Amino acid sequence: MSSEPLFGTVCFIGIGLIGSSLARVIRRDGLAREIVACARRQETLDKTMELGLADRVTTDPAEAARGADLIVICSPIGTYGAIAQAIAPVLQPGQVVSDVGSVKQAVIAAVAPHLPEGVAFVPGHPIAGTEHSGPESGFDTLFEGRWCILTPQPGTDEAAIDKVAELWRRAGSRIDRMDASHHDQVLAITSHLPHLIAYTIVGTVFDLETSTSQEVIQYSASGFRDFTRIAASDPVMWRDIFMNNREAVLEMLGRFSEDLSRLQRAIRWGEADVLEDLFTRTRDVRRSIVDAGQG
Amino acid sequence: MSSEPLFGTVCFIGIGLIGSSLARVIRRDGLAREIVACARRQETLDKTMELGLADRVTTDPAEAARGADLIVICSPIGTYGAIAQAIAPVLQPGQVVSDVGSVKQAVIAAVAPHLPEGVAFVPGHPIAGTEHSGPESGFDTLFEGRWCILTPQPGTDEAAIDKVAELWRRAGSRIDRMDASHHDQVLAITSHLPHLIAYTIVGTVFDLETSTSQEVIQYSASGFRDFTRIAASDPVMWRDIFMNNREAVLEMLGRFSEDLSRLQRAIRWGEADVLEDLFTRTRDVRRSIVDAGQG
Repeated sequence: MSSEPLFGTVCFIGIGLIGSSLARVIRRDGLAREIVACARRQETLDKTMELGLADRVTTDPAEAARGADLIVICSPIGTYGAIAQAIAPVLQPGQVVSDVGSVKQAVIAAVAPHLPEGVAFVPGHPIAGTEHSGPESGFDTLFEGRWCILTPQPGTDEAAIDKVAELWRRAGSRIDRMDASHHDQVLAITSHLPHLIAYTIVGTVFDLETSTSQEVIQYSASGFRDFTRIAASDPVMWRDIFMNNREAVLEMLGRFSEDLSRLQRAIRWGEADVLEDLFTRTRDVRRSIVDAGQG
Repeated sequence: MSSEPLFGTVCFIGIGLIGSSLARVIRRDGLAREIVACARRQETLDKTMELGLADRVTTDPAEAARGADLIVICSPIGTYGAIAQAIAPVLQPGQVVSDVGSVKQAVIAAVAPHLPEGVAFVPGHPIAGTEHSGPESGFDTLFEGRWCILTPQPGTDEAAIDKVAELWRRAGSRIDRMDASHHDQVLAITSHLPHLIAYTIVGTVFDLETSTSQEVIQYSASGFRDFTRIAASDPVMWRDIFMNNREAVLEMLGRFSEDLSRLQRAIRWGEADVLEDLFTRTRDVRRSIVDAGQG
């Protein structure tokens, strides 16, 4: 594609699976004149240069952000506050800050207060990923056909929102816009709770007597395997998600635990109809997902 | 392949995903001179004939089993006792009975007492499957590279065990032999508990307010989707599994619930290190599974 670049300079603060995938899209389609990448570890930056994903790299967020038209924070959510503080002094009106974090209320609370007047903050969350991490894991089709949710606060410059939305559209995403608190509830059940459960059961197996846990690995194709893939996701990223979407996750976890107790009781007391009834209903949910094109 | 048939007549009692896949293998490689299929519903039998998977079909288990060299029970576990009773009067010494059920102690208890002297019972469990059901869902590569666990009781005719093992080897499976009670424990954690958890969380979503559950479907790619696939498995088959592997499932469920409560507490109290520590360890389990060729 040889379209006019959407941006002069795009700056990535954090360049792992998501950041590097978006950088690949920008490179592929010429959506920016320059890409700047910032990471804490020099090793990550060396890899980024080696992959040709950035024109300039630095370990200093302020140096990376200076003069960039768009700054996309792609690091674990726990780092956002410090990053916003670090880049705030160099930001100028007209620059746009965005991010890709899986929690949005906490992100807004951590970033927005630091940004100077005239700098737009357009929080974003691409619903895409794999269990792999690092700039070498990214690929330019990661976002194709996937949703990207934007959660700008009321009063945010609409032109800035449009530019961020257009970038994601170019990456192949469908765009949705919603309130940050609603986003956090929806993601608590679609993503955060499933991950928590997967981490838990894989940990439960880890604690089994050694001989049994080797057999579990051997026979993992019978269901457990799907959980291990989810539970191989980036540990620091997920630690920060749970620390930052505490209330919504605890609410959904409460519902789940009640429902699990009910099934536990049905198994103990031999209530076959309770099980069959639920198992029949859950089939329909799968059909809806396949029909929605997300299967 | 044009090898000598392993069997004269093979009889399937129940011919869904697993039975029809094995029938396809037998057809493909000419492993039996004749295939007989039995099912409760005429519709299933019509479909089986239409697919060319059987030479004869009947709704009467005794008629199907009469004279067959190998009888493979492939119906939900809850039907086994009645099937064993129905076929017992026509069985003759030298015939071999096997099955594909996901629970083995309860299956032995339901079937073995009915079998006449000289009829070998070789319980089997192929660790393979999809979320689809019915004879039209099977395919002849389903068992390739997958394990098949045999759990014959001590004293079972070794020649009969060998023949059943050879059939599964021809299907591409690797064979393991273990005690039925050990099998049930290993499967409780690798398969039964993961399914129970997946059914539960999909049910939890089902009970959410309608608007939210539509969004859950829309954003399912973020983790929930994997659970819906598991939770779309056959309801009656799974009801019977939980009814018949009660103790092992309740034991594993107890461990899981304790571990989940610990994480719940860590989230509530902001114990980030507890989460990060677990999430880091679970990554290693995934690596072991990938290394074991089951990823």
